[in-house]
Amino acid sequence: MHSLQFTAESSSDGMVERDFTVGEVPGVLWSPPSGADRAPLVLMGHGGGNHKKHPAMSGRAQRLVSGCGVHVAVIDAPGHGDRTRTAHDEREITAMQRAMAAGEPVGSIVVRYNAHLADRAVPEWRAALDALQDLAEIGADGPVGYFGLNMGTAIGVPLVAAERRITAAVFGLHWPGGLAEQAKKITVPVEFAMQWDDEHIPREAGLALFDAFASKEKTLHANAGGHKELPRFEADSAVRFFARHLVRTPPTPA
Amino acid sequence: MHSLQFTAESSSDGMVERDFTVGEVPGVLWSPPSGADRAPLVLMGHGGGNHKKHPAMSGRAQRLVSGCGVHVAVIDAPGHGDRTRTAHDEREITAMQRAMAAGEPVGSIVVRYNAHLADRAVPEWRAALDALQDLAEIGADGPVGYFGLNMGTAIGVPLVAAERRITAAVFGLHWPGGLAEQAKKITVPVEFAMQWDDEHIPREAGLALFDAFASKEKTLHANAGGHKELPRFEADSAVRFFARHLVRTPPTPA
Repeated sequence: MHSLQFTAESSSDGMVERDFTVGEVPGVLWSPPSGADRAPLVLMGHGGGNHKKHPAMSGRAQRLVSGCGVHVAVIDAPGHGDRTRTAHDEREITAMQRAMAAGEPVGSIVVRYNAHLADRAVPEWRAALDALQDLAEIGADGPVGYFGLNMGTAIGVPLVAAERRITAAVFGLHWPGGLAEQAKKITVPVEFAMQWDDEHIPREAGLALFDAFASKEKTLHANAGGHKELPRFEADSAVRFFARHLVRTPPTPA
Repeated sequence: MHSLQFTAESSSDGMVERDFTVGEVPGVLWSPPSGADRAPLVLMGHGGGNHKKHPAMSGRAQRLVSGCGVHVAVIDAPGHGDRTRTAHDEREITAMQRAMAAGEPVGSIVVRYNAHLADRAVPEWRAALDALQDLAEIGADGPVGYFGLNMGTAIGVPLVAAERRITAAVFGLHWPGGLAEQAKKITVPVEFAMQWDDEHIPREAGLALFDAFASKEKTLHANAGGHKELPRFEADSAVRFFARHLVRTPPTPA
């Protein structure tokens, strides 16, 4: 088992940002400036083609840290960010780019490649969670959430299905593919986002993945618009979701 | 045209509550204690078998008044609250009660009766809105929203389709029936709630009514659970929806 090594530290937007590695996997941990002793932890999975510090990640982290007082950790997915690509990664990325350039459907390639990435990423996330919980400011028995859309859902659904320490999750914007079988094992509260007019993911596919979760508490948020038009207020909704499920006294009850 | 007559005034839960009549229709207007000069107005439609001061109405009003600083008005629907029932009302209510006691589906009766009530209620709401906008503290050119679930949706959808003064609406928990045709005329932002495991309204029916709205901005919130298990946090979501669409500077940006 690898311990967590901090490699850089800075402060901005009311958060402390610390780069880290767990073994060969690079990550970032955003925390409240006060230290937040034994505060809850939200793991965030980035989207395909992005990386741990993409503005979507730092923006959501800022809302979570300031809105809930939690820690937020992101690691680079295999073949993403600061990580090298394998020959397999290169082949699949080329196949996706070719399909997109030709205006052909990319769903089957994305589903296949994301499933492959999830096989590699789930053990990395579990090792990162072990190492994060060894930190004094997080601890081994605090609440843990997961927040990931697109590829972050492809990796997050099998992760949450396997990982009993994660007790609340926000997912969305993915095909059911092999994920539906994993979703049937998930019983923790789930918020799930889809786009009603998604040009890549058929409406029935989004509804089917939401339907598959075994959670007694689950909420679907479907917004009009295309794949990339998820409204910004859904990030605020995710913050409130984690405030309800991970934090005993949410600081923003409205 | 009837003007609005106030018949009683009291204060509680941080709101001023004023009973009123417009012609023969009784209503209630909840307002911020400060007076709220020219504040936005939210019209709320109550559910079937309920009335203007049902706890669901006063509870939602309290969240809207304190969260957004708006006025909230509810009128008794035909045959409800302080209003007399016609022979037609009595027949339909008996038919519904008989079906429920026998464990038979009530959808077709509810859809038929609610459509009849909407025919009577829409002109009453438009007259009430005229009279409310004559009040100095509301005014003729301020933003107006509508919030109604169940029967409040059956009445609200044709009302919003007909009434250009209403610029944002929260609906939910109803069959499409004849409403889908009216929904196709609605282009203002809509938030729509349905229950994923509704024992009365089939899932496909709820999805079809949401799909029918022509609004470019529309959001579906589908929660696990039965017809009467809509989570309380959906009322908070409606408050934020109206804060986004009716109030220029929402007081609770989180």
